[in-house]
Parts: sequence; C-alpha cells; structure tokens
Amino acid sequence: MLYEFKLKTEASDQIIDITNSLLQAVQDSGVTNGLATIYCPHTTAAITINENGDYNVRRDLLYALDHFFPDLKEYKHFEGNSKAHLKSSIIGVSETIIIRDGRPLLGTWQSPYFCEFDGPRNRRFYINIA
Amino acid sequence: MLYEFKLKTEASDQIIDITNSLLQAVQDSGVTNGLATIYCPHTTAAITINENGDYNVRRDLLYALDHFFPDLKEYKHFEGNSKAHLKSSIIGVSETIIIRDGRPLLGTWQSPYFCEFDGPRNRRFYINIA
Amino acid sequence: MLYEFKLKTEASDQIIDITNSLLQAVQDSGVTNGLATIYCPHTTAAITINENGDYNVRRDLLYALDHFFPDLKEYKHFEGNSKAHLKSSIIGVSETIIIRDGRPLLGTWQSPYFCEFDGPRNRRFYINIA
Repeated sequence: MLYEFKLKTEASDQIIDITNSLLQAVQDSGVTNGLATIYCPHTTAAITINENGDYNVRRDLLYALDHFFPDLKEYKHFEGNSKAHLKSSIIGVSETIIIRDGRPLLGTWQSPYFCEFDGPRNRRFYINIA
Repeated sequence: MLYEFKLKTEASDQIIDITNSLLQAVQDSGVTNGLATIYCPHTTAAITINENGDYNVRRDLLYALDHFFPDLKEYKHFEGNSKAHLKSSIIGVSETIIIRDGRPLLGTWQSPYFCEFDGPRNRRFYINIA
Repeated sequence: MLYEFKLKTEASDQIIDITNSLLQAVQDSGVTNGLATIYCPHTTAAITINENGDYNVRRDLLYALDHFFPDLKEYKHFEGNSKAHLKSSIIGVSETIIIRDGRPLLGTWQSPYFCEFDGPRNRRFYINIA
C-alpha cells in the first residue's frame, strides 16, 4: 500500500520528524511483518534515520553538513543550489525499515526524518508498505 | 524478476543516467505495484538518484566528491584507490524505488544514476523488480 | 523471516564483516529469490558494503571518515558524540541485497559490514529475508 504525505518546510535547512507518518502508514496498512520504504521524490532533500532524544543531534547534523560541504565557487549548475543536491546524494532519498508485529522495528532512539536542504518549499514523501 | 545491465565507463569519475534501464525492467516485469531495487556489485562505484534537468548537477556532484574527499597520503590500501572506495560507501551501492501503476514513482526531476569512481572499466548493475 | 544478531565492538571506530550472518540468514530462510534487508537499530553505527580483499580498505574507510568529519567545537549535543551521529547518517543504517538462487547477489569483492562509530558497545543488527 502506498501513502503520500505533504509538508511545508520553513527554513533553507531543516530536519523534520516523520515518525507519526510512518506509524500511521504501518497501522493503516494492516501489515504485521514486512517492509516500509520511505521515499523522497525531491533532488534537494533526503530521508535519514537518527536520534530522537536530544534535539541538538538534528541541529548538529545540519550544522555539520553545511560546515563540511560549503558552497563552492566552481559549481556550475545554473540554479546555484548544487550544495543541496550534494547533500541529497550523500544522505540518500530513501530508507527501508523492517515491520515486525505491526510496528516499525526502529531502535529505541531512532526516528525517521525528512531532510530539507533547499527550503523553504512545499514538499512531499511516500511510504510504501508491503 | 532480476535484470542485469552492462556498461562501459569512459572516465575515472562519471555519472551515467540509467533511467531507460529502470523503465525497461519495470515494463518487462509486468509488475504494476511493487519495488525496484537497483544494485551495484562493485566496490568503487555506486548508485544515486538526483536531478536530470541541468547536466551541470551531475558535473558538480563529481567535482564536489573529488574536492571534499581528495586522496590522502595516509591511505594504505595497496591498490591506491581508497578514495573511490570511500565515495562508494558514502553514496551507497543500492537504491530502492517504489513502482506504482506500472511506472517507477520518481520525482519530476529525478533520475537514477550509476556512479563510476575508478574508471574507465567494464561495469554492470542489477535491477530487481518485485 | 527476521533474524537478529548481536555483536560486541572493541574500539571507538570499527568495521566488522557480517557476511556469515547474511549467508546464514539467507540459507536458513529457504528463500531462493528475494531481498535481504540488513538494518542497524543504532544511531551511532551504520551498515555498508565494500571490499573484502585487502583489510586496509576498511582501515582507510575509518581513517577517512574520521579525517574528513572531525569533531567540531560548535556541536551542541550533550553526549558529545555528534561526530558519530553524522557518520551514521552519511553511511546509512540499512542496505538491501538481492537474493538469487538461494545466495546473496554480492559482487566478487563485496561484503556487508557493521560500522561502529562510538564504541566499544554491545550492538545488534537485523536481517529481514523476504
């Protein structure tokens, strides 16, 4: 089953918790054992899984990606957002999560996140449950 | 169903559009709703999904990966291509794409790419449709 | 079918070959054609696929990740291990491998690895076969 979720990002770089979307999709599907594929159809955004305890983990991730991959004067892409395209390919646009006993098999501290690298924009992502 | 594709890369670093291979595999399989797994069996190459509009996005990605991950004198691997192995693990050797209504559910500007980081070489990749 | 494996890492940064776990899961499952999903439920560890020939490839990968993503004084996460969280998101916590004729369709030189970035710790990972 396929689920589509829309969101509106509010900054150039932002990491948004999408755990509730995942829980909702898994529950609605009725699938007890299977796979959830979270997919981002954008080329300047990404999906990752990381810590949900201290918000500063997300803050530090965004800081680090910007610090280690700054804009380069040698970039030629006419839209000027090659930095965001690079971050997208480095983090990746999909994540696969195992479903067990009707729940996503995330670690205690794990949550899935939508990563905005070129916002603010209207965005969406898909979750396939099978 | 499993499909194998062969390609011959022509430079040390190259990003090759493999959209047609994906479309062909999905169509041939007859699967209308499912998952396509693109898999690269090499350790100095990778699979990514990014923009297909302006060719300079791909050019900038290769430039950036080489710029941010240059060769290091401390590398010890006897083949001397640790730089390429690193890029492979950072970009990743597989991508999962949702199939819906007989087509890969890519974003408007997304295409899948085979990334060569240690060419030129004879390469191949797999697409599993299920 | 779902398999859980436990391991004890022995250093702050370590890359551990988990090929035998994958072979064991695929064989035990009896699945001949399908997908294996390797999943790491930790936020300071990851899963990657890379060369198994020369051990220095793994050594160079760890060296490079530490070299290119050093600790930053600007990190705010109270546990002080943001460096490890960043590496986890860059490498990624899952890998999908195609199963064909009862065996994982890895390249000649490929092996799956569990990457520890904040050890030593007791860790585990899952392999879903379907």
